[in-house]
Amino acid sequence: METLSENRSFGGVQGVYRHRSRATGTDMTFAVFMPDLAAGERAPVLWYLSGLTCTHENAMTKAAAQHWCSEAGMAIVFPDTSPRGEGVADDKAYDLGQGAGFYVNATRDPWAPHFRMWDYVVDELPDLVTGAFAVAPDAMGITGHSMGGHGALTIAMTHPDRFRSVSAFAPIANPTESDWGQKQLGAYLGDDRAAWRAHDATILMTERGYPDEILIDQGSADQFLDKLRPESLAQAMMARRQPGQFRMQPGYDHSYFFVQTFMGDHVMWHAERLFRCLAGSS
Amino acid sequence: METLSENRSFGGVQGVYRHRSRATGTDMTFAVFMPDLAAGERAPVLWYLSGLTCTHENAMTKAAAQHWCSEAGMAIVFPDTSPRGEGVADDKAYDLGQGAGFYVNATRDPWAPHFRMWDYVVDELPDLVTGAFAVAPDAMGITGHSMGGHGALTIAMTHPDRFRSVSAFAPIANPTESDWGQKQLGAYLGDDRAAWRAHDATILMTERGYPDEILIDQGSADQFLDKLRPESLAQAMMARRQPGQFRMQPGYDHSYFFVQTFMGDHVMWHAERLFRCLAGSS
Repeated sequence: METLSENRSFGGVQGVYRHRSRATGTDMTFAVFMPDLAAGERAPVLWYLSGLTCTHENAMTKAAAQHWCSEAGMAIVFPDTSPRGEGVADDKAYDLGQGAGFYVNATRDPWAPHFRMWDYVVDELPDLVTGAFAVAPDAMGITGHSMGGHGALTIAMTHPDRFRSVSAFAPIANPTESDWGQKQLGAYLGDDRAAWRAHDATILMTERGYPDEILIDQGSADQFLDKLRPESLAQAMMARRQPGQFRMQPGYDHSYFFVQTFMGDHVMWHAERLFRCLAGSS
Repeated sequence: METLSENRSFGGVQGVYRHRSRATGTDMTFAVFMPDLAAGERAPVLWYLSGLTCTHENAMTKAAAQHWCSEAGMAIVFPDTSPRGEGVADDKAYDLGQGAGFYVNATRDPWAPHFRMWDYVVDELPDLVTGAFAVAPDAMGITGHSMGGHGALTIAMTHPDRFRSVSAFAPIANPTESDWGQKQLGAYLGDDRAAWRAHDATILMTERGYPDEILIDQGSADQFLDKLRPESLAQAMMARRQPGQFRMQPGYDHSYFFVQTFMGDHVMWHAERLFRCLAGSS
């Protein structure tokens, strides 16, 4: 693992790192904010999955999470959204290929060799980060924005023992019924829609739910509401009596101005739950 | 004045606007965050001047000021750092010409026709903003980063009746003795160093000071310390017994991670003073 940069931030360190990924077969870049800790202390860690076109950098610079994570004493990790570089398949469209990994393991060419973001985010990067930083593997939460909200919800509902708290900002909530989903799941997983079901938050909510409360924020002026389909997920949550909150925030759009506005709520939501895990395990 | 974008942010609106400037003879873009106000209410307003290579956008997206301004009930304005566009002189170097106006009125060609950022920031844009937005012209403060810290300090010390509070992040503190200053002041104002003195915070501090407290933050790991020369300004402040604080923040560098970390302190510093102005004038 190579350190690309480290900047002091809110009494902690905002770092950017690169490593060779087994899952994707490429170099991958990610960012970690570590609050200052006492000797021997391990921080809970929040995983933030970004949306279409993003790298590790967007949320690191625009989500204003460091202030809240510093206050809470929690680490936050910003992974990239796909493998990148020469020899990695891509597409001219902004919403397929590099920058648009959709947090799945692709099974179809040309994507199958490198587009394994599910394994990368669920297994490989947590193993690396919990080994290299003073974070607690048994106190991990997950959140994300848009495509990243989709990733956070689907991963958390599939691995609730690994990700002990979950929230999302304007998630792609029902991709099997959306232009943000059908195209990508078809390309990465093939035409058999049975394989798509594991990657649709609305379907997973109907079939499994999540064993703790979920927090979701959505802006009412979001320019992509027709693609996100929050109404499908909200319906599934309420039908299941899923504990949690689905908040429609009046006037907010899909931008990082929206994410930044509610980042404090989300960080504190996760911190409250993850510090409980830490306390329970010690 | 034309609206380029408006995004809901922290219960207020983050807008970007364009107008034809008399001062620069060009179109100029600027950003304003307006907190929600009661009917008839006018907010104090903080001017944030950005550094070399920046536009209105850097601090708007990376300084995390909106949260604090919303909490304080204060507006913040992010002007551009120079005139831009075809027909506007420029230089290959990042630190001269477009993106590097240095907050002076140029008197030398090729800069004189458009590079009038002093007049633009001191007079024209405040007149426009106080007319178009619900902000209080008698409760304006000013701050900035690097070249913008230089602008904030020199403008505030020259117009203390107009800018009733002042602070700076890692300001260029003594440009007449620095590579960040001699080159630019020579190009914009000519070789006669007498004309430079009005644009050096250390000289103005020695000659005039400021009638209220000043807050300055500087990172100890700033990669540009030799160009910023904080020791000159600190010496002048202490020699004059200037009320205020010059804080050396251990481990912080010149980046927006530094600015964001201390933005809350600065916003609250200005709010405390500007709300006192509002109360005094009502």
